[in-house]
Amino acid sequence: MIIVMKPKAKEESIQKIKSLIEEKGLDAHISTGKEITIVGVVGDKSKLSDQNLELFEDVDKIMPVTESYKLANRKFHPEPTKVKVGNVEIGGSNLVIMSGPCAIESKEQLLSTAHAIKKAGAQILRGGAYKPRTSPYAFQGLEEEGLQYMKEAREETGLPVICEVTSQNAIDAAVKYVDMLQIGARNMQNFYLLKEAGKSGLPVLLKRGLSATIEEWLNAAEYIIAEGNPNVVLCERGIRTFETATRNTLDISAVPVIKKKSHLPIIVDPSHATGVRSYVKSLAMASVAVGADGLMIETHPNPSCALSDGPQSLNFEQFKDLTNDLRPLVHLMGKTL
Amino acid sequence: MIIVMKPKAKEESIQKIKSLIEEKGLDAHISTGKEITIVGVVGDKSKLSDQNLELFEDVDKIMPVTESYKLANRKFHPEPTKVKVGNVEIGGSNLVIMSGPCAIESKEQLLSTAHAIKKAGAQILRGGAYKPRTSPYAFQGLEEEGLQYMKEAREETGLPVICEVTSQNAIDAAVKYVDMLQIGARNMQNFYLLKEAGKSGLPVLLKRGLSATIEEWLNAAEYIIAEGNPNVVLCERGIRTFETATRNTLDISAVPVIKKKSHLPIIVDPSHATGVRSYVKSLAMASVAVGADGLMIETHPNPSCALSDGPQSLNFEQFKDLTNDLRPLVHLMGKTL
Amino acid sequence: MIIVMKPKAKEESIQKIKSLIEEKGLDAHISTGKEITIVGVVGDKSKLSDQNLELFEDVDKIMPVTESYKLANRKFHPEPTKVKVGNVEIGGSNLVIMSGPCAIESKEQLLSTAHAIKKAGAQILRGGAYKPRTSPYAFQGLEEEGLQYMKEAREETGLPVICEVTSQNAIDAAVKYVDMLQIGARNMQNFYLLKEAGKSGLPVLLKRGLSATIEEWLNAAEYIIAEGNPNVVLCERGIRTFETATRNTLDISAVPVIKKKSHLPIIVDPSHATGVRSYVKSLAMASVAVGADGLMIETHPNPSCALSDGPQSLNFEQFKDLTNDLRPLVHLMGKTL
Amino acid sequence: MIIVMKPKAKEESIQKIKSLIEEKGLDAHISTGKEITIVGVVGDKSKLSDQNLELFEDVDKIMPVTESYKLANRKFHPEPTKVKVGNVEIGGSNLVIMSGPCAIESKEQLLSTAHAIKKAGAQILRGGAYKPRTSPYAFQGLEEEGLQYMKEAREETGLPVICEVTSQNAIDAAVKYVDMLQIGARNMQNFYLLKEAGKSGLPVLLKRGLSATIEEWLNAAEYIIAEGNPNVVLCERGIRTFETATRNTLDISAVPVIKKKSHLPIIVDPSHATGVRSYVKSLAMASVAVGADGLMIETHPNPSCALSDGPQSLNFEQFKDLTNDLRPLVHLMGKTL
Repeated sequence: MIIVMKPKAKEESIQKIKSLIEEKGLDAHISTGKEITIVGVVGDKSKLSDQNLELFEDVDKIMPVTESYKLANRKFHPEPTKVKVGNVEIGGSNLVIMSGPCAIESKEQLLSTAHAIKKAGAQILRGGAYKPRTSPYAFQGLEEEGLQYMKEAREETGLPVICEVTSQNAIDAAVKYVDMLQIGARNMQNFYLLKEAGKSGLPVLLKRGLSATIEEWLNAAEYIIAEGNPNVVLCERGIRTFETATRNTLDISAVPVIKKKSHLPIIVDPSHATGVRSYVKSLAMASVAVGADGLMIETHPNPSCALSDGPQSLNFEQFKDLTNDLRPLVHLMGKTL
Repeated sequence: MIIVMKPKAKEESIQKIKSLIEEKGLDAHISTGKEITIVGVVGDKSKLSDQNLELFEDVDKIMPVTESYKLANRKFHPEPTKVKVGNVEIGGSNLVIMSGPCAIESKEQLLSTAHAIKKAGAQILRGGAYKPRTSPYAFQGLEEEGLQYMKEAREETGLPVICEVTSQNAIDAAVKYVDMLQIGARNMQNFYLLKEAGKSGLPVLLKRGLSATIEEWLNAAEYIIAEGNPNVVLCERGIRTFETATRNTLDISAVPVIKKKSHLPIIVDPSHATGVRSYVKSLAMASVAVGADGLMIETHPNPSCALSDGPQSLNFEQFKDLTNDLRPLVHLMGKTL
Repeated sequence: MIIVMKPKAKEESIQKIKSLIEEKGLDAHISTGKEITIVGVVGDKSKLSDQNLELFEDVDKIMPVTESYKLANRKFHPEPTKVKVGNVEIGGSNLVIMSGPCAIESKEQLLSTAHAIKKAGAQILRGGAYKPRTSPYAFQGLEEEGLQYMKEAREETGLPVICEVTSQNAIDAAVKYVDMLQIGARNMQNFYLLKEAGKSGLPVLLKRGLSATIEEWLNAAEYIIAEGNPNVVLCERGIRTFETATRNTLDISAVPVIKKKSHLPIIVDPSHATGVRSYVKSLAMASVAVGADGLMIETHPNPSCALSDGPQSLNFEQFKDLTNDLRPLVHLMGKTL
Repeated sequence: MIIVMKPKAKEESIQKIKSLIEEKGLDAHISTGKEITIVGVVGDKSKLSDQNLELFEDVDKIMPVTESYKLANRKFHPEPTKVKVGNVEIGGSNLVIMSGPCAIESKEQLLSTAHAIKKAGAQILRGGAYKPRTSPYAFQGLEEEGLQYMKEAREETGLPVICEVTSQNAIDAAVKYVDMLQIGARNMQNFYLLKEAGKSGLPVLLKRGLSATIEEWLNAAEYIIAEGNPNVVLCERGIRTFETATRNTLDISAVPVIKKKSHLPIIVDPSHATGVRSYVKSLAMASVAVGADGLMIETHPNPSCALSDGPQSLNFEQFKDLTNDLRPLVHLMGKTL
């Protein structure tokens, strides 16, 4: 931590800060420049957590130097983490595709989708049973009935299944049926939910919040890992910007940034990032080329009639085309699909 | 709803859409221009909710014309709503100031604050017992013990009290102690929590999400009202932009926009919007001048040692100065403080 | 400047940086913590401008500690600057209102506006002769003919006049007719134009760029002042965010931030910030209450027929109402109007 | 264009608008719903440019249905445009790489770079002679001397050369030396400069503004094409968002969006988009995979000592590695490099 003093800070103000830091058992290194003085603080900063140094006299600003997340930080955990979901490994040499409908609408819809995506090469089935929708008048999901269908789909196809959870109740139900929990963008800083997901023991897919910084995202992952659950996979799904040509703006740079700052696997969801079906394939290609560990792609037997997110969903034919086009690129990147 | 067809759309594509709309019992008005054809849809759009018209052949885009929120919409409820919190009315001729510490740290801290803010003119005591913090290693709140202190503070001072809730558990506890629930920015689209807050029967302060549009915010309010609870107060607390000189960017225009689009009262929180104590007073002045119904201001007996948000908290002396400076402006705006 | 080393940086890497800094005549203060080492650089950083230290081995990041603008910086020029435009002083005890049409359309339009705004209390006439328009097919301005009308309006009313310039040619013409140059938002980082405006000798109104940080804005002002022209007035006119209910988002906090970081006067343009006529008055009130030195308000004899920005322009009656409503607030703030 | 009336709009208000539209020679199609009435306007909207219909009584809002750019619009020009720069074609089956230093510093620096990038596979040499820098105290470029070196580099290597222009003067000089003009992000809405670039007769590379929407970007291209110059290449270089881990946020979706909305070629500049050397390669891979027509990559003989943008520049070895890694991907995409 660096404390930047105001120009012409009084010597007394500087000494007062130095004393406080030393009292708390840390070291203060003072650098006096022509214009300003800075104080470098060396030691365990948590001992200063009850002191708001920016309010001290003659202090201009405080600049943190180290990240607040530790367990998710590559600096202290250089080896990449691999997460097992059923028998599928994310973060290794597989390019893992999760696919399925935005919302589970019926048993037939889910099972036909499960078979179709498996045949095309997807390894994990996704489906929403608890839908966070902007308007209370939109379809809110089948809840536990939907989870039951997910379990049946796994039994029929052998695909591990993942479902979004939006409350403690949803977690309590989901652990009985699914292989991986998803925390959605709108709940990325629902810290209560993060802790409960951490305690569930299941691997967790953590989507990036609509306007979350990468630092906040990794701190959200830290909440889960701090409960003793290291099996976190990150999912970039677009951030909110001023651009309106796409539903969100896919932050493709997040992939190499996460690879540098964290050891956690990261996948990309081009369906939510764009909200437009015709852009999904090219963004999926970009995501593989940039080094993502996997993809999440929405599919539906008949997108024209989907109860949620139809405009961004692929039908089975389009999904098969997508995986066929992805395969040579995946191989070029040294991975398997 | 308007359906915009692509240039050179086939007559057959247009007729197919017209037929579908009419089958569902709505009317389709076709306007054929030189370049493009548009189809105006008249009738109850919810009957089309299982049809994703943007995926139909030759369709360029769909443009909604009406808002999805109804109960929060001024068009259908022209009279401004007044919300009673204990004996305090928000949305009427009072300028209501809620104040108190970001986090409740001890009984003494809370009680001394309650007395100080009451004396300076505040009408409602705020205090955080469940703290959503970016890092899991930051102070997370006293939970039910904090709620107990809030109740004692009300008994001693007569001030109604408000507390943020972050989970079903927190709501279950809070209803026993407080007069108003707060849904924080990070939970604005925690739809499960919104419904539970709606069912609680208590008035709800709904903060704007970090990057929520005003339309999404009003849809979040709709979730609460749809549970039969019309007592919603909105709170603008700054949105996320590229600017880093302040913690967030106070969207002061949200006040007149909300006044035009909704009948709900709106207050402003300049403490969270800026994150910097020295900007709080001028932004509080601006908020009153722009027509806000109230303010939320963080105070602390000793901000330098606050466990949360100290840098933006006022001490008692500063808070008294603030209300003294606000009073003539409040009167000029035709309100009382 | 602070150099943050990576965890486990080699001693050799640290010494190499230390040597380089000392060779250049600066001092390097090394603070070695448990996890990382930081190097504080003391002295004239411009001597390091040909060294990109972030590319040196084992360097994690570089953190600047001081601002790059000096002449516009309040730290080195604590007294507020007052700018004279004709006989009107901006930055003193007057609340200065600039008003007039977005685009000059005819002599009659401009003169009638000049008389109306003067009568209502405005002190400076604005009018656009060179219009930067998003589409090449929109009205582009009367150019020098418009400037000629501005001069005539000044002669008739005594009001100083201001006009936007968009090129060297426009500056060459404008200096013959007007009292103040305006650099628009889209040209805030047209550095060539900034320098030429600086050389013109006229006071300059510098609007904030659509997505400029306050730091970039002050650096743009620095370009003008560095040409020997200290007469710069800043104008906040809204920034670009995800919110679409208003054309831009008025960053009202920019006023106290600028007052803290710079000595330059700052005014607010609520017309461009919102793009909606019905929000202009309440935002003008907020701007005065937050401490702005003035306002820029668009007016037009008949906004329904304005060739540019009609929807945000006030007619004469509305403008008179605005100044009447502002006056008591201006007096309350200790200023005159 | 759609005119949305307020709920309970008076019949008289609707008829007044209908009459005005018909007087101007257009057609008005009225659709009356249960809640609101909408008016579809059919015909040449430019005839309504002196009417601000949103200010008419009982009008709620105006919704444009067609884009304002025509010449750059794929709807009216379905075939992709190919742009010739010297003997290099952009927009065809070549993946075109432009490379070179951010700022030209000396003849030796430029010539050594030209040889190195040619050998590694780049087809066009870039170099900055007029540098728009945030601070007036940063290196501003060699100006005409730099252009002279560019010409010499072309003569020695045969590579066509491109240079950014920031003023009329710079264009006047550049046309004597270079093969393509670049309009930088900060000047994307410097409409005067766009027109002059259009008149120059040279092909133009138009970078996206820091916070420009895709619609504004295409309107900026329209300014150039409207001067009779169809040879415009777009360059995505990152947009401004709240994320600070990268200098800007590369909007990779812009590539498929532009391909859908326009016939102009589009390239990507990952160097400016991230500002960090170690992210350049993965983003270059993503750009090729998403379907970009080319790349712009900054290179420097010794990035540690570059006078501008060193931290994002590759040295020659890194650039050779980059093109070697790109080649198989380019071939997979059916293009040549």
